[in-house]
Amino acid sequence: MQVNFVVHIVSMVVFGTAIAAMLPMLADVISGRAEWVAFAVSAAAMGFFGGACILATRGERSKAISLRTAFLLTGLSWFVLPLFAALPFLDLGLSYADAIFEATSGITTTGSTVIQGLDDLPPGILLWRSILQWIGGVGILVMAVVLLPFMRIGGAQLFRTESSDTSDKVEPRWFILMSNILLVYLFLTILCAILYWLLGMNAFDAVCHAMATISTGGYSTHDASFGYFDSRSLQWVATIFMLSGAIPFYVYIKAVRGNARAFISDSQVRALVIFLVVVSVAMAGWLSRHNHVDFGDALTLTFFNITSVVTTTGFASVDYTLWGTGAVGAFLILTFVGGCSGSTSGAIKIYRFQVLTQVISAHIKRLTSPHRVVPTHFNGRPLPDDAAISVLAFLTMFVATIALCTLALTFMDLDLITAYSASVTAITNVGPGLGPVVGPAGNFSSLPDSAKLLLAFAMILGRLEIFTILVIFDRGFWKN
Amino acid sequence: MQVNFVVHIVSMVVFGTAIAAMLPMLADVISGRAEWVAFAVSAAAMGFFGGACILATRGERSKAISLRTAFLLTGLSWFVLPLFAALPFLDLGLSYADAIFEATSGITTTGSTVIQGLDDLPPGILLWRSILQWIGGVGILVMAVVLLPFMRIGGAQLFRTESSDTSDKVEPRWFILMSNILLVYLFLTILCAILYWLLGMNAFDAVCHAMATISTGGYSTHDASFGYFDSRSLQWVATIFMLSGAIPFYVYIKAVRGNARAFISDSQVRALVIFLVVVSVAMAGWLSRHNHVDFGDALTLTFFNITSVVTTTGFASVDYTLWGTGAVGAFLILTFVGGCSGSTSGAIKIYRFQVLTQVISAHIKRLTSPHRVVPTHFNGRPLPDDAAISVLAFLTMFVATIALCTLALTFMDLDLITAYSASVTAITNVGPGLGPVVGPAGNFSSLPDSAKLLLAFAMILGRLEIFTILVIFDRGFWKN
Repeated sequence: MQVNFVVHIVSMVVFGTAIAAMLPMLADVISGRAEWVAFAVSAAAMGFFGGACILATRGERSKAISLRTAFLLTGLSWFVLPLFAALPFLDLGLSYADAIFEATSGITTTGSTVIQGLDDLPPGILLWRSILQWIGGVGILVMAVVLLPFMRIGGAQLFRTESSDTSDKVEPRWFILMSNILLVYLFLTILCAILYWLLGMNAFDAVCHAMATISTGGYSTHDASFGYFDSRSLQWVATIFMLSGAIPFYVYIKAVRGNARAFISDSQVRALVIFLVVVSVAMAGWLSRHNHVDFGDALTLTFFNITSVVTTTGFASVDYTLWGTGAVGAFLILTFVGGCSGSTSGAIKIYRFQVLTQVISAHIKRLTSPHRVVPTHFNGRPLPDDAAISVLAFLTMFVATIALCTLALTFMDLDLITAYSASVTAITNVGPGLGPVVGPAGNFSSLPDSAKLLLAFAMILGRLEIFTILVIFDRGFWKN
Repeated sequence: MQVNFVVHIVSMVVFGTAIAAMLPMLADVISGRAEWVAFAVSAAAMGFFGGACILATRGERSKAISLRTAFLLTGLSWFVLPLFAALPFLDLGLSYADAIFEATSGITTTGSTVIQGLDDLPPGILLWRSILQWIGGVGILVMAVVLLPFMRIGGAQLFRTESSDTSDKVEPRWFILMSNILLVYLFLTILCAILYWLLGMNAFDAVCHAMATISTGGYSTHDASFGYFDSRSLQWVATIFMLSGAIPFYVYIKAVRGNARAFISDSQVRALVIFLVVVSVAMAGWLSRHNHVDFGDALTLTFFNITSVVTTTGFASVDYTLWGTGAVGAFLILTFVGGCSGSTSGAIKIYRFQVLTQVISAHIKRLTSPHRVVPTHFNGRPLPDDAAISVLAFLTMFVATIALCTLALTFMDLDLITAYSASVTAITNVGPGLGPVVGPAGNFSSLPDSAKLLLAFAMILGRLEIFTILVIFDRGFWKN
């Protein structure tokens, strides 16, 4: 195991975050807020720790990463970074548990918050929350495009490129692909910020919300989230850009390289868009009939809020749980869906439903014709056997993790709706749950510390698709 | 497809139920209740319909049943029988939807009820409810021991005997095994009734409760269920006999044939007993600390109520949802567990958790060592590949079915807790859900008809382990 190398990379991530902490410091200095000191101290702490560890492990370069190193690197990064990223939140008077919850929720692009009164906070801390989500989005793109297919987590082997199929090492040429993807990510963020600004947000809100949109994170600079702006056009732009963060980033690369049909020919993108349109239109129909809302208004409401939940962003324009029991049921189930693999979104993800449909349909056919060979496909290619098991195992453990987390939270005296929906929203990295406490109009601050730390852990479990962590906790992992 | 043969057998089941309806008729006649007429009319209707169809399809004998015939026979029996078994309930003034719900809940051994004021009902109708559960128990034993392994539903192929491994036909010698199993079932029922009677129940209550205990059904003759008797010893006897209905009936046959160690050597029985003891003791500890209950009393409460839920019986001695949020969470999760395959109990069942543990553990090991062969076992034998897929596919569809059922119920204006827990308790065939409406102290009568019919369908889906029904709804099933 290349432990020194892992420490080296994680330290570089911490050091990079120290540099990022200069931006909110600058924002506070410019607006004359004394809170800039918190960022200076935090940046110094991260810079010192990161720098020292980089120096201590220097020379530990590696051109190829082994499988076990990839697991350790992924797991360790996501556990260590929130411990440091939490530091600036202490200045708000939050406990360290609260600060860790907020930082983890940011970095995992979940978007649940324990902070009340966002509208009155200094710009630095608001910018910091958005930056954490944006950095978390970068992290998940690296993981989703390079590491998960390589680690074959939850069926991600379907997204191995042909040249990597036989390799047990991460290829250096991946780093070129990654820089292209990060350029697309940056470009989309800037485009989104400009449009937000043109349509009425001030420049600061536009930048913060753009970062939280493309990363499908969902942190807002206002307690009322997108409800604050009360603008149809802003909601539609947000809908488009949440979607843009939830489709596979390799599709953009194909499009840039001249294959404009890449968006249509990718089966995940097609399925996600069709799903969003069908569900949003159906729900708008129900909403306009059930609650006597104008159908046009209903469409804006459903497209924005459903896209927000399905892409696992978690912005809200209204408290949709007040629409009726049907809406509560629907939004709970939509929380599980997720966007595409290779994007910044979390939860189960569209391709697993596509694989599941194929596997279950083949299974049913084989029940009556045991000796029949039933072909299965994904994205036009035959489905490998191990992908079926990977997807089914993932789905089972996803549900089991939610069940265990819910059980633990009920023993911390949370009522069932709060415990269950908080578990679901944490593991799916969506953000809002159900009920008065963790619902879209609520706030996680009143939960006990133990619940906050458990939910932060659940966010990381969900973000890393569970098995990445289970592997590290397996005794066999540490044997040679 | 042997459609005529299927109709022949289903008609014989209906005719047999007509004969069974004579018993409650007799009970009402003896106690001088005019309600005996309802049973006379119902028995006549069932006898006429069953008899006519038997005659119309006579000569359609078959010594061996093909795979597709087995699916059709199973599916049709469980959908047709409740339609007839519902007839006597109409005499209570129930709507046909209510009557179908009650009959389906009985035959699937679920135990949810729409009838209020059980204590004041004539003996006939109370006996009818218990008889339906007892008959349903027979049905599920035939299915679990003979048909499911043959149909390879949800991993049940693990319980194929060696000689049947290569056969695509149900062997006639199975009918000998089945009659032995039914003798054990009858013996356990009589033994349970005698013990109930000796410990203080009147003879009628003893017989009714014994039938609902061994079938893990849960219908009581009192609104307060076992709470009515307020007897520790009765609760412990019930605990033992609920467990006896939830262990594989082939184990009794082995024991009768001289292998007394069969109970200990069967891995399902061992796991179920250990699970029940660990959870009940832990919960009793929590209960005595959290609610200041005497530990001895707490043990009786937890062993009885937890065994009741885990074996999918559904008797209640108290409203355990009042113990605290932790108890609500725990009982919800326990609802999913289930007893052993080859028994009368429903839900996921212990062996699937045993298979799941093996499959997930092997999957985790293969993630870091892709080329390693990791052996998996069940009950001391290697686990076949198709059993792993079957179990995982079952678990996934089990959860998906609950999700869809919950969603549909919320659109019928049920609140989320009621919709979700009613779906879970129907599909797992347990009986009580959560919340004031469907909880252990509630009653399903106030739900809309659409919800009752959907839940009745869900009970059958759960009872037949979902895939039996999915297969029949597959277009390919009906092609030659």
